[in-house]
Amino acid sequence: MSTPNSLTRGYFESLDRADPLRDLRAEFDLPEGRIYLDGNSLGARPRATRERLLRLLDQEWGQDLIQSWNTHNWVGLPETVGAAIAPLIGAEADEVIAADSTTVNLYKLISAAQALRPGRHQIVAEAGDFPTNLYVAQGICAANPASRLHIVDPDQIATALGPDTALLMLCHATYLKGEVHDMARFTALAHDCGALMLWDLCHSAGAMPVELNRCAADLAVGCGYKYLNGGPGAPAFLYVARRHQESIPPAICGWMGHGAPFDFSQEYRPAPGLRRMLSGTPSVLGLAALHEGVRLFAGTDMQTVRAKSRRMGELFLELLQPLMRQYGFDLISPADPERRSSQLTVSHPHGYAIVQALIARSVVGDFRPPGGIRFGLAPLYDSYADVWDAVQHLRAVMADEEWRDPGFQIRKAVT
Amino acid sequence: MSTPNSLTRGYFESLDRADPLRDLRAEFDLPEGRIYLDGNSLGARPRATRERLLRLLDQEWGQDLIQSWNTHNWVGLPETVGAAIAPLIGAEADEVIAADSTTVNLYKLISAAQALRPGRHQIVAEAGDFPTNLYVAQGICAANPASRLHIVDPDQIATALGPDTALLMLCHATYLKGEVHDMARFTALAHDCGALMLWDLCHSAGAMPVELNRCAADLAVGCGYKYLNGGPGAPAFLYVARRHQESIPPAICGWMGHGAPFDFSQEYRPAPGLRRMLSGTPSVLGLAALHEGVRLFAGTDMQTVRAKSRRMGELFLELLQPLMRQYGFDLISPADPERRSSQLTVSHPHGYAIVQALIARSVVGDFRPPGGIRFGLAPLYDSYADVWDAVQHLRAVMADEEWRDPGFQIRKAVT
Repeated sequence: MSTPNSLTRGYFESLDRADPLRDLRAEFDLPEGRIYLDGNSLGARPRATRERLLRLLDQEWGQDLIQSWNTHNWVGLPETVGAAIAPLIGAEADEVIAADSTTVNLYKLISAAQALRPGRHQIVAEAGDFPTNLYVAQGICAANPASRLHIVDPDQIATALGPDTALLMLCHATYLKGEVHDMARFTALAHDCGALMLWDLCHSAGAMPVELNRCAADLAVGCGYKYLNGGPGAPAFLYVARRHQESIPPAICGWMGHGAPFDFSQEYRPAPGLRRMLSGTPSVLGLAALHEGVRLFAGTDMQTVRAKSRRMGELFLELLQPLMRQYGFDLISPADPERRSSQLTVSHPHGYAIVQALIARSVVGDFRPPGGIRFGLAPLYDSYADVWDAVQHLRAVMADEEWRDPGFQIRKAVT
Repeated sequence: MSTPNSLTRGYFESLDRADPLRDLRAEFDLPEGRIYLDGNSLGARPRATRERLLRLLDQEWGQDLIQSWNTHNWVGLPETVGAAIAPLIGAEADEVIAADSTTVNLYKLISAAQALRPGRHQIVAEAGDFPTNLYVAQGICAANPASRLHIVDPDQIATALGPDTALLMLCHATYLKGEVHDMARFTALAHDCGALMLWDLCHSAGAMPVELNRCAADLAVGCGYKYLNGGPGAPAFLYVARRHQESIPPAICGWMGHGAPFDFSQEYRPAPGLRRMLSGTPSVLGLAALHEGVRLFAGTDMQTVRAKSRRMGELFLELLQPLMRQYGFDLISPADPERRSSQLTVSHPHGYAIVQALIARSVVGDFRPPGGIRFGLAPLYDSYADVWDAVQHLRAVMADEEWRDPGFQIRKAVT
C-alpha cells in the first residue's frame, strides 16, 4: 500500500474514474459542495424517489384513491419491497418483509423467539448493541419476570450461552465501533446451545454482503433509512428463515397479518408465511420511497459495494493516521479492514465540537457519546475524492483549532 | 323535513352554496367526475400535501439531510402532529402523539392498561369492534394466559363489566354500522367498576366532535388516513390522559421513547410524559403528510363538520328510502342521526356486485362482509350534490340490474 506521502488528490480522482460504481452517484440528489459521510445514519435521496412519490401522490393517492390498494398493489408492498431487499442480505424473496420500525420488528421477533424456545429464559446481547435493541429486550423482560437479559462483552458471548438461552441477538455491524461480527460463527454458537440467533442488520444491509441463509440465521431485522436510502424514518424490514415461518407466533396480531383480512372475521388466524408478521396498515409513502432506494442495488452486487467501502476505509485511515498521532485521536473501529464495517470511528475528548466544526466546513459526519466521531462511507454515492477532501478539512479544523468556537460546544437534540 | 318528491338536485346545489365548509373542497386534489364516498377508508389528498412533500424531499432530505432532525425539527414531529390533532378530539396538546399504526398503538395501550390494573384479568370489547382491535387483544391474551378477552354485544357491556375488568375498549364509531357510542356513558361505566376506558377514534376523529377529556377517558387511538386525510398507511395517533402519563409503562421500549435517546445509555429510562410511548424512528414522510391533512381543520370547528355530515346523512337516507323498499336493501346504520357516524351502511344480498357497479359509474363506496355497502361522507370535500348524484347512480344500477355483470362478481383483494 502507498505511504501517505505518495497519496495525492490526483490518485483519489483516478480511483473514482476506475470505480465500477461511479455512475450511481448521479442517481442521487446530493447537495452541492457537501461531503456527506453520514449515510450510516440517514442515506441520501435517490433521484428516482422524487418521481415515484409524485406518481404516488398525483395518480395513485390523488386520482385512483382507495382502488390503488388493488390496482397499484399497495397491499403487496411489504412483500414487494421485502423481496427486493432479500438478495442484499442472503435471503429468499419470501423470507423478508418491509414493515414498521426496527424497534417494533425487534419487539415482534424477540417475543416470537421466546415463544419458540419455551422453558428458556435468557436473552444474550452484546454491550456494544445499539441501545434500542437492549431497551426492547429490557421491556420484554420487565413484562415477563421469568425472562432476563444478559448483556456481555463480545468475547464473553460463548461462555454466556447455555441451556437456558432462548436467543442470542447481535448487531452484524455495531453502530459505534463499526465492528463486523462473524455471522457464521456466532450463529453456530447460538445453535450449539439450542438457542435462536437474531441479527440486526441496520449497519450492514446495503453496505456489505450479508449471508443470512448461508449462516443458517433464524431471525433478522434491519433499517431502511441508512445504506438502503429509504428516507427519514423509512419502514424497517424483518427476516424469518423459512423453516420457522409456519410456527412463529406474531406478538402483535393485526389485521394485515390475518389469513383473510378482508373477511373481517372476529377470530385472529395468522396468515401463512411471513405475512403474519405484519400488524397494521402499511405505510405506503414510506414503502414506495424505500423501494426506490433498494432498487438502486439492482445493477450491482454486494461484493463490489464492499470492495469500494473497504478500500475507502483503508485510505481514509491511512490519511488519518498522522493526524491521529498529532492531535490525540484514538481509533475506535477495528484496525483490521475485514472486521470493520462501512464506517470509521475515532474518538477525541473534543469529539462533539470537532464534528460541529467539520459540519461548518460542509463535511458531515456525526458524534456518538462518549467521544466518538463517526464517518460513514456510502459506496453508492461517496467518492474517493470525498475521503481525501474530508481529511484535509479535518486537518484544518485541528491545525487552526476551529473546534474551539463556542458555537460548536452547544449540544443539539440529534447528531 | 322535505319529502323525497320535493327534493331536487337544485335543492342540493343550494345547500352546497350555503355550506360554510364549501371552500375546503378546493383544498383537495379530487379526481374529476368521481363521487368519492370512501373517505372513511382512505381520505382524499390535500393539495398542500404535494408541496409539503416536495419541500421535504428536495430541501429537507435532499439538501439538509441528517441535520434536518434538528433544523426542521423532524425529531419533534410526533408531538407537533399530535398537538395538531388534540383539539379535534377534545384533548390537550401534550396528551396526543402521532406514531406507528393504529394496531401497534392499540398493542401498546392494551398492554399498558393491564399493567396499570394489576390483578385484573379481563378485557371487555364489543362484537362490532374493528377486527384488528380484537386480534390485538387476542394476541395479548394468548401471551398472558391469565388474561382473557370478553367480546359482547353493546347492550351487554354494562353487565359484562366487573371487579376483574382491567379495560373496556370500544370504537367511538363502529366501522361497519357507523354507530356512535356514548363516550361519557361507557367511560363512566368502565370507571364505576374500576376499569380503564380505551376509545378507538378511527371512524370519528375528523368527522365529529370527540370529547375525550370532558368524558374523562383514559386512553385512545385513532387513524391518520381516514377523515384526517394523512395518506395511505399514514401514522396513527395515541392519547393518554395526563393523569396516567407518568405511570404508564411503554410495552415497546424503544430509543425514541427514552428520556435521553442521544446519550445512548444501555439502560432504558422512559421519557417524561407521552414521548415514552414512541418506539422507533418516526416516519418523517408519513408524519409530514399527516400534518397537512390535520392542518385543514384549523379554519373550522368540529360542530360545523358534524352538522354538515349529519345533514348529508339524513338527506342520503331520505333519497335512499324508496330504493331500499323497492330493491330489498336493509339499513345497517342506526336510523337515529344522533347515533349515526359520518357514514351510511345498507346491506343487500348482492352488495359486493352493487359496489362494483357503482364504482364503474364513478361512485366510490366500499363493501364490508357479509353484505354491507358503506357510503362514507367526508364533510371537508364531499358535497350535497355528490349525495344526490350517488343516489341517482344507485337507482340506475338497480333499475337496469347493472350489478349482474359477471365482471362485478369477482372479489378483489381489498374493498
